[in-house]
Amino acid sequence: MTFRYQHRIHFRDTDAAGVVFFSNILSFFHEAYEASLAASGIDIRQFFRVDDLAVPIVHSNCDFHRPMQCGEIYDIMLTPQQESVNEFSISYQSFKADEAIRIVSEDFTQEDASDLANKRASATALTRHVTIQPRERRRIDIPPMLLAWIEQWSD
Amino acid sequence: MTFRYQHRIHFRDTDAAGVVFFSNILSFFHEAYEASLAASGIDIRQFFRVDDLAVPIVHSNCDFHRPMQCGEIYDIMLTPQQESVNEFSISYQSFKADEAIRIVSEDFTQEDASDLANKRASATALTRHVTIQPRERRRIDIPPMLLAWIEQWSD
Amino acid sequence: MTFRYQHRIHFRDTDAAGVVFFSNILSFFHEAYEASLAASGIDIRQFFRVDDLAVPIVHSNCDFHRPMQCGEIYDIMLTPQQESVNEFSISYQSFKADEAIRIVSEDFTQEDASDLANKRASATALTRHVTIQPRERRRIDIPPMLLAWIEQWSD
Amino acid sequence: MTFRYQHRIHFRDTDAAGVVFFSNILSFFHEAYEASLAASGIDIRQFFRVDDLAVPIVHSNCDFHRPMQCGEIYDIMLTPQQESVNEFSISYQSFKADEAIRIVSEDFTQEDASDLANKRASATALTRHVTIQPRERRRIDIPPMLLAWIEQWSD
Repeated sequence: MTFRYQHRIHFRDTDAAGVVFFSNILSFFHEAYEASLAASGIDIRQFFRVDDLAVPIVHSNCDFHRPMQCGEIYDIMLTPQQESVNEFSISYQSFKADEAIRIVSEDFTQEDASDLANKRASATALTRHVTIQPRERRRIDIPPMLLAWIEQWSD
Repeated sequence: MTFRYQHRIHFRDTDAAGVVFFSNILSFFHEAYEASLAASGIDIRQFFRVDDLAVPIVHSNCDFHRPMQCGEIYDIMLTPQQESVNEFSISYQSFKADEAIRIVSEDFTQEDASDLANKRASATALTRHVTIQPRERRRIDIPPMLLAWIEQWSD
Repeated sequence: MTFRYQHRIHFRDTDAAGVVFFSNILSFFHEAYEASLAASGIDIRQFFRVDDLAVPIVHSNCDFHRPMQCGEIYDIMLTPQQESVNEFSISYQSFKADEAIRIVSEDFTQEDASDLANKRASATALTRHVTIQPRERRRIDIPPMLLAWIEQWSD
Repeated sequence: MTFRYQHRIHFRDTDAAGVVFFSNILSFFHEAYEASLAASGIDIRQFFRVDDLAVPIVHSNCDFHRPMQCGEIYDIMLTPQQESVNEFSISYQSFKADEAIRIVSEDFTQEDASDLANKRASATALTRHVTIQPRERRRIDIPPMLLAWIEQWSD
């Protein structure tokens, strides 16, 4: 089950070209990531506090298909995936709210939906995260609560 | 009727001291302002595009009573007030979500509520806005749609 | 001696109205504050880490006189002042770079300069800071290193 | 000749984990891009105003090798490259200031330097940009001023 998060574009995230500044879109995706953790019962404040566990992002890539503007509402779809014992990735897609509704309501196979979704997304991205012991900065295994979160929101 | 807006604190708005960076709180209040405009039927994207009308903020002040942390939810109360033919102000208060609920559900007079609210708010602020013709940057009267918005959300 | 900091406006700090988003101006002033601490030999990374001492901002106010645009360079003047044993304030003024140069080079008394400066500033602001013991969040005296910093950059 | 830009990490760009929030690193690289345009005599304010030409970013990818902290100074190296008549890319590397100095002063071939640089960089990134006519959003050729900028800062 993919996690879905709704986000409204605020004025501070736009720039003088009249659209969202590119790197802010990655911030929106991170908001969705935080919301998915909270939805799995993880205490976000604890999670990001970095005592015994830190989960730094080691890679991001993002494709920007369409400009996003102030006041528009987007549905962000998020899917985590385990990559190794101490690494996972998250893929994201954002759709203008009415577009997302249309995609869901139309009658087509899962594969078609995925194709269509990729074409219509305003942005798609991937982040890679590793689990480390923060003081020594050495890798440790993904803890059970994060494995449960991956399980919950994987396809 | 005061406008109420709910906001969750995201990780990007915190700083290395572990709490929300002070000026981001003004950004949250601006989000509430945008939401109140949208709730009055004003097209935000048009509104902030600055063709015939610009509404720059000429003053802000803010008191920070309590630290705000990632994952917490806040209720922001917003009240606009007309100051002259071409100037209005907005006052804001933010409350940790459960606090706000308690304030509303308790049994006390409006005056007491206001007293209590001021004591418990995590932050309070005021912004002053002027209405100008953007090309010449000279003041013009507040247009009817904004007067209606002030009317709608005033006490 | 007032502390002077030079800042160039970046694209990410503008908004869809084509000028700097209002609360980002307070961020620029905070950058000047950080630079002034570093110029007094204070290790910023240590300072903001909040172990034995935290210095939260409890109040800010800001007047926005002129729009600031991408690519423009500003001189920010910063003056700290002790307010009590556990509280200090900082006042800030920002000038478009060439304006600031003109003010300095013209021949007038200090009082006139101050008058003129206020008129020509793109923004002026004040922040109030308190010194606290972070775990218990109770006030403690301003430590010697900060008193020295206040001394160094006061008029 | 690679373009070099120096950037100090500010408090507002850190997060509650004590290091720079990942997407802000892309903002630093964009600052370097703006500085390189200005260094080639391009009026940034005009450039980003989007009348006859817009240059949206259509892709970004970034690898985060080491955490960046408040007060640290980074040297950002930037190299643009033409990809087609209406598309160019920019590659970026950031080094903690003293590291960068060491790399430059050591005695090794260009290839070794590049190897070493990749290993020591705190972050490396690539952005892809297209040149479009903004009203119709159709692609147009890269204009001469941008071709000259690519030429100037290419290897």
